[in-house]
Amino acid sequence: MTLKKNIGIVKPEIFKSLNPLRLQSGKILKEYILMYETYGTLNKKKNNAVLVCHALSGNHHLAGRYSSKDKYPGWWDNLIGPNKPLDTNKFFVIGINNLGGSDGSSGPKSINTKTKKPWGADFPIATVEDWVNSHEALITSLNISKLAGVIGGSLGGMQAIQWAIKFPERIKNAVVIAAAPNLTAQNIAFNEVARQSIITDPDFNKGNYYEKNTKPTRGLRIARMLGHITYLSNDVMGSKFGRKLQHKNYQYNFNTEFEIESYLNYQGDKFAKQFDANTYIRMTKALDYYDPANGSKRNLSKVFKNIKSKFLVISFTSDWRFSPGRSKEIVKALLDNNIDVKYAEITAASGHDAFLMEEPRYHAILQSYFNKML
Amino acid sequence: MTLKKNIGIVKPEIFKSLNPLRLQSGKILKEYILMYETYGTLNKKKNNAVLVCHALSGNHHLAGRYSSKDKYPGWWDNLIGPNKPLDTNKFFVIGINNLGGSDGSSGPKSINTKTKKPWGADFPIATVEDWVNSHEALITSLNISKLAGVIGGSLGGMQAIQWAIKFPERIKNAVVIAAAPNLTAQNIAFNEVARQSIITDPDFNKGNYYEKNTKPTRGLRIARMLGHITYLSNDVMGSKFGRKLQHKNYQYNFNTEFEIESYLNYQGDKFAKQFDANTYIRMTKALDYYDPANGSKRNLSKVFKNIKSKFLVISFTSDWRFSPGRSKEIVKALLDNNIDVKYAEITAASGHDAFLMEEPRYHAILQSYFNKML
Repeated sequence: MTLKKNIGIVKPEIFKSLNPLRLQSGKILKEYILMYETYGTLNKKKNNAVLVCHALSGNHHLAGRYSSKDKYPGWWDNLIGPNKPLDTNKFFVIGINNLGGSDGSSGPKSINTKTKKPWGADFPIATVEDWVNSHEALITSLNISKLAGVIGGSLGGMQAIQWAIKFPERIKNAVVIAAAPNLTAQNIAFNEVARQSIITDPDFNKGNYYEKNTKPTRGLRIARMLGHITYLSNDVMGSKFGRKLQHKNYQYNFNTEFEIESYLNYQGDKFAKQFDANTYIRMTKALDYYDPANGSKRNLSKVFKNIKSKFLVISFTSDWRFSPGRSKEIVKALLDNNIDVKYAEITAASGHDAFLMEEPRYHAILQSYFNKML
Repeated sequence: MTLKKNIGIVKPEIFKSLNPLRLQSGKILKEYILMYETYGTLNKKKNNAVLVCHALSGNHHLAGRYSSKDKYPGWWDNLIGPNKPLDTNKFFVIGINNLGGSDGSSGPKSINTKTKKPWGADFPIATVEDWVNSHEALITSLNISKLAGVIGGSLGGMQAIQWAIKFPERIKNAVVIAAAPNLTAQNIAFNEVARQSIITDPDFNKGNYYEKNTKPTRGLRIARMLGHITYLSNDVMGSKFGRKLQHKNYQYNFNTEFEIESYLNYQGDKFAKQFDANTYIRMTKALDYYDPANGSKRNLSKVFKNIKSKFLVISFTSDWRFSPGRSKEIVKALLDNNIDVKYAEITAASGHDAFLMEEPRYHAILQSYFNKML
């Protein structure tokens, strides 16, 4: 077995589109910027490109570090690099910060060239469909006519599905991990509580808080704490934290008594300092809206009928946010169309978050699938 | 079958204790008030009394109406009344508002006789153990030496367990519904998000908001919305709301798009107007703290060894807050002690909330159990 290496120092790039993008909402972005990052080398045939789509709080920075002083590498560094499952010795890997994001791509935090002020609340809601359309513009600008693969977990998996539906000629493989063909009422409910928490924070100022120099950190913090509960399984919370106390005995006050409380508060505080609330609420909306089969009105099998790519679908047993049953809905609709699909249900305790972890069986399946891709 | 009747107009009563109550926290309540309500008649032998314990947002008003104009009856009116499963023709039924509540019993909203101002943040956290000790004082004042039964759902079920542990000679039957012997890390996590939402609301003023004439409605609203998700099952949310929209098409804004969002916002608004935030955070603490077996340190079976009452334990298949598995922990520990226990796992779609509903098989089991109680 060849030794896995880290990718080293990386640098983001800017794609600027001057072609207007008509969004699902009917609104038009006259021009937009996408921040992206690439790793590995595009081969001469230009057939080794893999697009990695990010989930709710991700971005284009998939792997490597911006400087040797960076504490953490990109968010999927355990997957992407020389001799890693998504091997940058073989593949040209692309990460893109989605529209509405806050890491350099056009979004509520970026400057609206018309007003010379941050977009704030005026930045339109972009959907999974809009993202994939903007991805396609970037992929075209890189002279890639067909992607070897599009891979994503959670909301990222929805983008991989959408790529296969919308651009069947331009994608050879879709890798859909811990995803679903749409959100359940319970999923939407959790998103709405998170959004309400942010929107009703007095520092939200209807989304125009950049100019006021305020940040709805209280609301974003609650949203993230809540999110964390849904990313972890009941079991892993039990085994990691259980009823472990912070002190020897109960303190009988409203400070944190249990380790799980302390963990959530820490995660919430950390996230609220870094992330942009306007982006957060937009990402949850993209999740809510995505529904290629449009509820019960159309059939997912029918929606998949023009797909030409192969699929790898992966779920995790303890994922209650997007349970294995939801992945099987995707698999069934693919099989109805005789599409080449492989499905793996990984026994993992860590819930929805498992897709970000270096679980050996999970990574082995990805490695094996990518090895056969070229 | 005899026709069920409603209980008619009822009236709350006040129990004032001048005996100091030493709380689990070590703090002492020099005197306290309990609001309570009774239905039916205490028989001469005084052996037909049933105490009903309330859960997070309940109170002493179990059944009937205060006036003919009241829109809604007490919270367990479907269970309690003439010829209802808990038949007030036979039983003398008692409801008590727990300490820390906001419906007349001593709590953060009530006046601290020492300062002549509302207690606010200074009202101590009362636990399940404290509640049961205060219940016992009231029951004694009514000259009842032995309760025919103590019944409760959720947090109310914990009080029934505690009655059986603490006062084995004074309770003949414990009816424990949709409960658990302690909270899981996930349960605590949801409570902590709810609390943080309230505590970080700028209108909370560290709990002393009564004098400032503010109310942390934003935070309480979020807490209740979140609570509602955990009271309902994923399935019932799916069948009731699914992905049903409020309008024909997506509006692409941050107003409510889906019916489930509208439902949650409505529930949150309604609750935040009525309920007291200081009480809410205290009730969640009582839930977190209750753990008669003290984590792994003591064994639940050992804790139950002095219990003399019979038990009826009921769970609901779709309850993911306190799953049937948690009820079975109680049943097992009772069986280890050869305690007479009956267990029913009701197939019900409505999740944790099922304990408040008029599900025929559920009510039939309660009726049958109560019929044999006297």
